[in-house]
Amino acid sequence: MQNIFVIGLGLIGGSLGLALKQSERAVRILGHDTDKTAIARALAMGAIDEEAPIHKGVTESDLIILCSPISTYVSLLLAMRPYLRPGSVITDIGSTKQAVMNMFEELLPDFAWGIGGHPMAGSEIQGINGADRYLFENAVYILTPPADVPEEVMTGLTGLLEITGARIKIMSPDRHDEIVATISHIPHIAAASLVNLTTGDNETLMMAAGGFRDITRIASSNSGLWEDILLSNRGKLEGKLAHFITLLQEFKQALAEEDVELIREKLENARNIRNRIPGIRKGLLPNFCDIICIVPDRPGIIGEIGALLGSRGINIVDIEILRAREGDGGTMRLGLPLLEDAHQAVKLLRSIDVKAWVR
Amino acid sequence: MQNIFVIGLGLIGGSLGLALKQSERAVRILGHDTDKTAIARALAMGAIDEEAPIHKGVTESDLIILCSPISTYVSLLLAMRPYLRPGSVITDIGSTKQAVMNMFEELLPDFAWGIGGHPMAGSEIQGINGADRYLFENAVYILTPPADVPEEVMTGLTGLLEITGARIKIMSPDRHDEIVATISHIPHIAAASLVNLTTGDNETLMMAAGGFRDITRIASSNSGLWEDILLSNRGKLEGKLAHFITLLQEFKQALAEEDVELIREKLENARNIRNRIPGIRKGLLPNFCDIICIVPDRPGIIGEIGALLGSRGINIVDIEILRAREGDGGTMRLGLPLLEDAHQAVKLLRSIDVKAWVR
Repeated sequence: MQNIFVIGLGLIGGSLGLALKQSERAVRILGHDTDKTAIARALAMGAIDEEAPIHKGVTESDLIILCSPISTYVSLLLAMRPYLRPGSVITDIGSTKQAVMNMFEELLPDFAWGIGGHPMAGSEIQGINGADRYLFENAVYILTPPADVPEEVMTGLTGLLEITGARIKIMSPDRHDEIVATISHIPHIAAASLVNLTTGDNETLMMAAGGFRDITRIASSNSGLWEDILLSNRGKLEGKLAHFITLLQEFKQALAEEDVELIREKLENARNIRNRIPGIRKGLLPNFCDIICIVPDRPGIIGEIGALLGSRGINIVDIEILRAREGDGGTMRLGLPLLEDAHQAVKLLRSIDVKAWVR
Repeated sequence: MQNIFVIGLGLIGGSLGLALKQSERAVRILGHDTDKTAIARALAMGAIDEEAPIHKGVTESDLIILCSPISTYVSLLLAMRPYLRPGSVITDIGSTKQAVMNMFEELLPDFAWGIGGHPMAGSEIQGINGADRYLFENAVYILTPPADVPEEVMTGLTGLLEITGARIKIMSPDRHDEIVATISHIPHIAAASLVNLTTGDNETLMMAAGGFRDITRIASSNSGLWEDILLSNRGKLEGKLAHFITLLQEFKQALAEEDVELIREKLENARNIRNRIPGIRKGLLPNFCDIICIVPDRPGIIGEIGALLGSRGINIVDIEILRAREGDGGTMRLGLPLLEDAHQAVKLLRSIDVKAWVR
């Protein structure tokens, strides 16, 4: 039985608890949060086994995972310190790693191991209500161990975290911070600045309901949390931001000069690079074909479709409502794992007045 | 019976055809495309009634909709010109409007009306395969009529386009171009530049699989099309790009000076503005509560859930697989219109071994 102490029961802490509890591994999870509602919810979901104050959680656990904002780490580490024992392992889930490794170095006793961590997964739903056993599935999970950490400690931690379905990668804190500056922090600053560029004008916002709303989603994140993140990665951000501004100035220059070749080159370069970013699959199984169907808006239609295909042994592995009109109907996408089922499914759907075709 | 000629059977042309054909209004849709596969697909889907060459389509129609790239307009307008008749109405779906209105002014005879149009809707699936009857539902659809167009012409066009479910807004081409510069074109340049900032480094792209991939999705769009769009809105873009660069420089300065107050102000301002952008609803009906369930990966589970809830008269109005692990299971969201159904649904789901709770 391994005892784990999760401090901070939000989206990440809750999801880690759910993933670890629901595996076959024997773990006991103690949880702590300053918010009593979060604790109650975590207990009800089965993300933690019991609530514990800091001294109890630290005393009774082999592994402590900090899942609260980075700004809380110093006081937590000071509070934890008297109860740590030789070989205690502390990890975290913060978005920057050099600043965290410096805190570990400074505040942890020599006999305990502080190993930085950063699971690169998120959700639109913040807090414990967004917690999901599968949140980390196929996500990259960075660990930044200090040079002197024993191999068996790393093997133990890696083996445990792999239960979540994440792909563990070892990296230096410096390299981590450089990469997240590029793929997370600069995009955040860009999204906030794009939103601010609208100046909040009503007519502009009315027209922004489609794509603009999607691409600036991160600008609605918790601003206090992001203020912390950006400041703690200040060193890397200044250079990256300067580089980003240079790229925009080059674009501006190309537009001013009507340099079609350069504009095309920049757009095509971006397109080629982006198409190399690996995607994360969502359906229950790889789906080999999609069926699009136009469903009438009648009560129980989704259940009806599921039952009809299920009765013929056709397995739906992905399902999504694409668009709809109230009182009229909508378009739905069904993912099927077998191509040979698709044409039969289309026929069956048409028999209940659902217009359908294989995409 | 109204005759409509759609030139360019891609995502927008195909979706317009589907939406207009499937209403109760009697319309006959003629279609044209240089790609024979697109024509065959549009006919098979019921997006058009018949294929027509330019001279036939123009001669036989009351309304002509240009749904091809803006760079094709000049040659199309020249080809159409001999066949236009008094009162012919020409509209388009291009992303910039001043340049298009200038072409209409210059190339259309005085007895025909050129009215710029821009439906603000899109899809991840490009071309006719992405065509969707409900694509425009609740989307903003801008029209930029010239000053002298008769009111009955505008009423006719507006009434027809409202069939698509879009919300029609009249605007000057100049104002339109200014707004789309802010909410569409600058975000496109920003997304391409964010992707280029990665320099295509493999390790960086591996870590970009999550959020970064989503927010830079537009950088994978057709670069030829976007080259056209950006150049045709060059006038507005230079000023907006300069303003965007200034906002980023202010951010950089605030980071350099560790000006926590200013960083917070910028992030909170963005958050407040973004939260004012209206959302577009996707489910079949407004859903008042979400149920989250962890489903085992067994064949037919989605059908089983649909059938079970359907058999008790519980109407599912939205459904989405959030995350999954192959061979293990996944997390699904069900949207229900009635709160009183939610607790019964949770009980029913638990009876078939599906862990579920009301979010």
